[in-house]
Amino acid sequence: MTKTMTAAHYRGEKQFSVDQIEAVAPEPGEVQIKVAYCGICGTDMHIFQGHMDARVGFERVIGHEMSGVVHALGEGVTGYEIGQKVVVRPLAHCDNCPACDEGLQHICHNLKVLGIDTHGAMQEYWAVPSDTLRTLPQTLPLTHAALIEPVAVACHDVRLSGLKPGETVVVIGGGPIGMLVAMIARDAGGEVIISEVNESRLNVAKSLGFSTLNPLKTGLAEAIDGQTDGKGADVIFEVSGTQAGVDAMTAIAAARARIVMVAIHADRPKVDLFQFFWREIKLLGARVYEPQDYDKAIEKVSSGAIDADTIITDIRPLTEVQAAFDDLAANPSAVKSLLKVGEFA
Amino acid sequence: MTKTMTAAHYRGEKQFSVDQIEAVAPEPGEVQIKVAYCGICGTDMHIFQGHMDARVGFERVIGHEMSGVVHALGEGVTGYEIGQKVVVRPLAHCDNCPACDEGLQHICHNLKVLGIDTHGAMQEYWAVPSDTLRTLPQTLPLTHAALIEPVAVACHDVRLSGLKPGETVVVIGGGPIGMLVAMIARDAGGEVIISEVNESRLNVAKSLGFSTLNPLKTGLAEAIDGQTDGKGADVIFEVSGTQAGVDAMTAIAAARARIVMVAIHADRPKVDLFQFFWREIKLLGARVYEPQDYDKAIEKVSSGAIDADTIITDIRPLTEVQAAFDDLAANPSAVKSLLKVGEFA
Repeated sequence: MTKTMTAAHYRGEKQFSVDQIEAVAPEPGEVQIKVAYCGICGTDMHIFQGHMDARVGFERVIGHEMSGVVHALGEGVTGYEIGQKVVVRPLAHCDNCPACDEGLQHICHNLKVLGIDTHGAMQEYWAVPSDTLRTLPQTLPLTHAALIEPVAVACHDVRLSGLKPGETVVVIGGGPIGMLVAMIARDAGGEVIISEVNESRLNVAKSLGFSTLNPLKTGLAEAIDGQTDGKGADVIFEVSGTQAGVDAMTAIAAARARIVMVAIHADRPKVDLFQFFWREIKLLGARVYEPQDYDKAIEKVSSGAIDADTIITDIRPLTEVQAAFDDLAANPSAVKSLLKVGEFA
Repeated sequence: MTKTMTAAHYRGEKQFSVDQIEAVAPEPGEVQIKVAYCGICGTDMHIFQGHMDARVGFERVIGHEMSGVVHALGEGVTGYEIGQKVVVRPLAHCDNCPACDEGLQHICHNLKVLGIDTHGAMQEYWAVPSDTLRTLPQTLPLTHAALIEPVAVACHDVRLSGLKPGETVVVIGGGPIGMLVAMIARDAGGEVIISEVNESRLNVAKSLGFSTLNPLKTGLAEAIDGQTDGKGADVIFEVSGTQAGVDAMTAIAAARARIVMVAIHADRPKVDLFQFFWREIKLLGARVYEPQDYDKAIEKVSSGAIDADTIITDIRPLTEVQAAFDDLAANPSAVKSLLKVGEFA
């Protein structure tokens, strides 16, 4: 029953090793997935840069933006067929903390993210708890399916914003998540403007049909003011993680605007709290996704509401994991890089 | 018809003059009020300190936390009786801006506050637009009625928080507004803790039956953690206007806690935005009040839900306006100081 497979391990100091190891068989209650593709997430880049060594260690198979098929069922698992296309919602909650008690399992006080706190999808066979699986339409390409996890983040962000059709939306930061947020917000009826300083990302945004603005060249507040007859933006997604983005988010906000905090601000930036008071602005923190956001993401990727082929800027084999990370670190203008993990006919 | 009356004018440099001037008769659409009491608001203290000279000038009769009776009706005004007890909701909106278009007249882009941007209630007779009046039960003491304006602020803050009975509430800052927020939050079923550094304010809070904590002596986050079995506070009102208060507000927040920004932060404090993301905290700006908050405030002051006699720490005649402001500036432990403006039988 044991089989050898390829797996990539994060070894610290911006290094991965590609190793031949024994595939881990599914425990009772688990499903073993044959992994097809695994996207490289912003969090994976943080791991690569060494910012999360204390949490991740130097023996970890990372990766959580994946697609694959059911390969083997652990004891007691029913309801899945071998070969069925699936993705994983890579969260494990404790069911025994105040957040879980409130039904907020996705922000469980003891939340573990599969592929960060446990081994992940940058290996050919991955055994996961069966309740983390989501089944896909068999017609959905497995490349596109690897976008479902980040699209679910975008679906969560847009849902929490309460966006209504016709509202003016500004996405501050046009990286991969910002771009997906923009697509989901547009799909929900928002009039979306992407603010981004990187010209090649701006070009991708334009090719996707978005209004764009480079705040280093054009005053963002003046532009939004002009476009909205002085009202300001109804919904703002702060995805830049910068002080400039935090300054902009309050400067462009309409009365009772909703600002969704998508970015991770490791430092405490200065925030214009006076504007929150003055215009009764709301700030809404948003983290990962709830189950319904995954359902929505599967629907949106399957329906083509997400232009997956534009978002996926390169695909390389798992054996080139080191080069893939090196290149992404050197070239932040790429949108989404996938690793092709397993061989599929 | 002209009559002479006493009026207090702000003259700059922490000085008031008390003058005998002619009372202004009501214009068409206005009501002339005989003013009974006028509270001294935090904003009035800012004016006194000279922080708002550009906006207020040196000819202004200030004051907007008032009570009185209808004295004369301007042309075309109906529905009020002479001698009827009233308060003023001291806001004038433009009806021609994006906020007014959205039904958010209380945060109109061109909002004027009567008693700041126009003459106010620190004069015996005050003519105001009739649509700013709210009538009171004739049994309500006019001293208590002078609290309705700040209580309406508290009602607005608590309403926007979405407080549900049984939730843990922390009020950061136990000054006059913090104390009123605490009372309204308790009345709405909240389990309220007041965090305040001034011992004499803490004693007032204790005498009102509140749990209190001095964060200079006891770790606030540890205390809230202990009281909530590690959950944190459900609703937090930041009323302190300090960096320490802003630090505390995220440190004590439960998953999806709501933080209401009541204080005016003139500087941009550092904010732990990571915690907003991590625990999906919401920040809600709240300014003045909407009409329903005034209705609620009248109800709560009339019913005795607000312990007015404890909140009102001193009453002095309008002629002592200078001493009243001087004393308040020197003694921030007072809760609410009223000026007795007119003579009533």
